[in-house]
Amino acid sequence: VLPSHVIRTVGEQLAKLPLNDALLVSCSKGIENYTLLRISEILKETLPDLSDERLVILSGPSHAEEVSRGIPTVLVAASTDYLSSQRVQQLFMGPNLRIYTSHDVVGVELGGSLKNVIAIAAGISDGVGCGDNTKAALMTRGMVEITRLGTALGADPITFAGLSGMGDLFVTCMSRHSRNRYLGRQIGKGRRLKTVLNKMIMVAEGVRTTQATIDLATKHHIVMPITQEVYQVLFEKKDPKAAVHDLMSRSPKAEDWG
Amino acid sequence: VLPSHVIRTVGEQLAKLPLNDALLVSCSKGIENYTLLRISEILKETLPDLSDERLVILSGPSHAEEVSRGIPTVLVAASTDYLSSQRVQQLFMGPNLRIYTSHDVVGVELGGSLKNVIAIAAGISDGVGCGDNTKAALMTRGMVEITRLGTALGADPITFAGLSGMGDLFVTCMSRHSRNRYLGRQIGKGRRLKTVLNKMIMVAEGVRTTQATIDLATKHHIVMPITQEVYQVLFEKKDPKAAVHDLMSRSPKAEDWG
Repeated sequence: VLPSHVIRTVGEQLAKLPLNDALLVSCSKGIENYTLLRISEILKETLPDLSDERLVILSGPSHAEEVSRGIPTVLVAASTDYLSSQRVQQLFMGPNLRIYTSHDVVGVELGGSLKNVIAIAAGISDGVGCGDNTKAALMTRGMVEITRLGTALGADPITFAGLSGMGDLFVTCMSRHSRNRYLGRQIGKGRRLKTVLNKMIMVAEGVRTTQATIDLATKHHIVMPITQEVYQVLFEKKDPKAAVHDLMSRSPKAEDWG
Repeated sequence: VLPSHVIRTVGEQLAKLPLNDALLVSCSKGIENYTLLRISEILKETLPDLSDERLVILSGPSHAEEVSRGIPTVLVAASTDYLSSQRVQQLFMGPNLRIYTSHDVVGVELGGSLKNVIAIAAGISDGVGCGDNTKAALMTRGMVEITRLGTALGADPITFAGLSGMGDLFVTCMSRHSRNRYLGRQIGKGRRLKTVLNKMIMVAEGVRTTQATIDLATKHHIVMPITQEVYQVLFEKKDPKAAVHDLMSRSPKAEDWG
């Protein structure tokens, strides 16, 4: 995860090079605040000559430290052009790295970004002292609302049940190394966002993504109750316990992705 | 999880009572070996007067010990009759128990049963010494093949991304209390199935479910590579490391639920 201005600088530098028909593989996650652009959209803005066919998104459950140690890892490579995603599959696949192709650039990019909001929610649940039942419910229902937003933005809903959605959320919520979950846990214990952020060396991208997700949900009229509670806890000093209570006592619903 | 002969005995006892139009709420999971019936199908066999409309499946991420301690828990109640699932929703909902309704009896029942096979796979991955990346990939791709089988059996594919599928798998794979994951971890460390089962007081239902899932996959011609490897490791003394290797080196594929 890189701040969007770094992505813009990289794009501007790349624009000066003779890229010819080289593929551009994006492994970055996030949504730019205010513009609400995905990384690939930022790259296309800074690289006007880059056609969709030459852009491939590589995403999925992959702690870098594990990849570097040769731990078996499985990713998804998405492009609007099947030949490009297949090219990346062929180039990157090896004994410890398996790649699936996907046509769903929007879904794969959004899955990897939006799940950070749910990772914060899972952390808050732990910090408050809720159990595995609560966390599993937040993760599942969180993915439902992300799927709803993603579908409105043009993604294929089933993509969020795949490696860049569920898969990435699994690894984020299981690992002790996740910055977003750490931040959530501190917030759940009653610390203030500013205090927690001041103590962290690396940025928890999910904080920025929560703001961007709320903006996207408002723009596209999508109901996202878990994201809304995370937002209020992070930015409006809402008591995390009250947030859990409010989620539990919403009106009865059907399990429904529509 | 109860062995199917217990379900049959319960059904036979219930058949002697004047049930009138009472609802029957099943909270049990599993697939009967040989007959390959779901719990609700066993109940209908032993209770011939029970109409589909009076049967409700209650499932989802719910360690009983957490429910009993009042930890916030979210479940799904499925029935072919919306009024029946809504009735269960009204009866069971409270400050710490939230219920969603579903029309997908087949999907909700299968999700809660089949995920135990994937929980064993996740345990084996841990036992072998693989990382969080590997486990997250197995969980995600495991749910893809379960979704494929479930769809062939009449379930709605998206149900497996819900509380009784993904949700229940989350809680099983996060908790240290899961018997299926414990069993998988022991197997992954090189212990033999018989030795591990002899040391366990409670049954790991996933062992039986693995056999039933393989039989269902064969009958319906569904490719289930992870379940197949779990089966070979459990019952055919395949080396768990070789199983991971064989999964990683399958031919390149698209991320695809079809």
